[in-house]
Amino acid sequence: VSALIGLDWGTTNARAFRFDAEGAVSERREATRGILNVEGGRFADALAEMVGDWRRASPAAPILLCGMIGSRQGWREAPYVGLPAAEADLAGRLVAIEDGAIRIVPGVSGEGLSGAPDVIRGEETQIFGALELIGARSGTFCMPGSHSKWVEMRDGRLVRFATFLTGESFAALKDHTILGRLMSDAAAHDPDAFAAGLARARAPGGLLHHLFSVRSEGLFNRIGGDALASFLSGLLLGHEVQPAIAAFASKDVTIVGSAALAAPYVSAIDAFERRPRHVAGDDAVARGLWRIATAARLVRS
Amino acid sequence: VSALIGLDWGTTNARAFRFDAEGAVSERREATRGILNVEGGRFADALAEMVGDWRRASPAAPILLCGMIGSRQGWREAPYVGLPAAEADLAGRLVAIEDGAIRIVPGVSGEGLSGAPDVIRGEETQIFGALELIGARSGTFCMPGSHSKWVEMRDGRLVRFATFLTGESFAALKDHTILGRLMSDAAAHDPDAFAAGLARARAPGGLLHHLFSVRSEGLFNRIGGDALASFLSGLLLGHEVQPAIAAFASKDVTIVGSAALAAPYVSAIDAFERRPRHVAGDDAVARGLWRIATAARLVRS
Repeated sequence: VSALIGLDWGTTNARAFRFDAEGAVSERREATRGILNVEGGRFADALAEMVGDWRRASPAAPILLCGMIGSRQGWREAPYVGLPAAEADLAGRLVAIEDGAIRIVPGVSGEGLSGAPDVIRGEETQIFGALELIGARSGTFCMPGSHSKWVEMRDGRLVRFATFLTGESFAALKDHTILGRLMSDAAAHDPDAFAAGLARARAPGGLLHHLFSVRSEGLFNRIGGDALASFLSGLLLGHEVQPAIAAFASKDVTIVGSAALAAPYVSAIDAFERRPRHVAGDDAVARGLWRIATAARLVRS
Repeated sequence: VSALIGLDWGTTNARAFRFDAEGAVSERREATRGILNVEGGRFADALAEMVGDWRRASPAAPILLCGMIGSRQGWREAPYVGLPAAEADLAGRLVAIEDGAIRIVPGVSGEGLSGAPDVIRGEETQIFGALELIGARSGTFCMPGSHSKWVEMRDGRLVRFATFLTGESFAALKDHTILGRLMSDAAAHDPDAFAAGLARARAPGGLLHHLFSVRSEGLFNRIGGDALASFLSGLLLGHEVQPAIAAFASKDVTIVGSAALAAPYVSAIDAFERRPRHVAGDDAVARGLWRIATAARLVRS
């Protein structure tokens, strides 16, 4: 039996968690059923496919969803909550579907570092879980991904955040510009080239100038073809971490994400003289779903 | 009859110029016969196709080539000349093919603004022509393109330059990331959105953060789908022009290129409080070919 079924339902993947009455995760699943992989809006079918057996075993268990499933392209749009956002603000603005059997956590909107609109969906749930996992109420959080998010928490409230298009820019520049031409196909992570990219990010000239050096370092055989992708990765992470730490002053930065995504960020944040700490993204989002369900009185803590 | 046949032979296109005894261009041609469009290294055939009739009419006329034709992927590699580079340095390092009937102008290598290796090929010839056309021996030059070049000339010598991957980054980000999703297919240049992009480049957060605002400005309907590409263009040009003018101190910036490529750079450089001036790229490279041919005593001035 489950006290709660929770899903972090994103763009390409969905992760499902089954919680016992104490809020511990008793089972977890992952499927490539992100909202872009669900045809014709058949989200109810996709949900049944992923957790139908859990629902049949515990028909009364509430279901809580977070992530892009609450976007305009998702199952039902859950309008953004503004800043500052406490757990109770999210819990008070859940959007109900199927007569309340299923609820969706809203995203959060604010202004990024430049004054432009900025948005998160899914990370707000992760962050409240991560806060509990590290036993803090304040801090700076970095959530790597196609669109990396940096978030500042103060006294248990989400007060500021910023998105960086790092991961997606890396893929587009590597696969669709001349920079990829000198790169070997199956290259492993090269720590020295990655560190050289981080260092280059601190030099004058700006990112668009530094990008050309990915080609010239290869042309002059200063960095080999099997290390150039790591150099580009370090360069882009440097151009994310440098302005981020300038804006988010905390000495400690908690990285929330998978071990694979977190590893280069640990190096990068360390290179920029901040203290990195890692929390698994899965654990954080599961804990956040339970906390929000509790705050919304869907379950008893 | 021709005193000289000159070609600016680049990656995708080639432009040919026929010069009379006074160095005036009597005829010009353009063909999509850049080095990537010449199969199996048959450059001699491609040259015959483009200017065979000119050669038959003036068998004694020397032929001078500049641009990527002198790269490792071109007809014959013309090794880079170092900085500072005067016209005489280029003229003294021409690489001869076909028993000297044809000569290739070398490119120039140096260190960019970040200390990384940097290279130009073709622009060195344009710049010496542009210098004559504006009647100067010093100045800052901007040459827009897939890879924009900024060049500093002092007392008739090329002393410093830097490459920015602006044009290619624009295409990759527009066509291969989520940023293109909200953009209309056939969008005209939108001066207001372009100016907003230039202004965003001056805000805190860095380029990777600013890129996400291309999406968020669209999501919140602050910039329409038919103006978002102009916003992205302004954003990237701002991220080129800002570090470039910080490094190249001259108040006047001469933009060398086609009218279409130059127009947004005129706006951008103006927005960053420098005085832009435009010289047609065709005229500049033709003049540069003549000048280098003269310095090499291939023709008499």
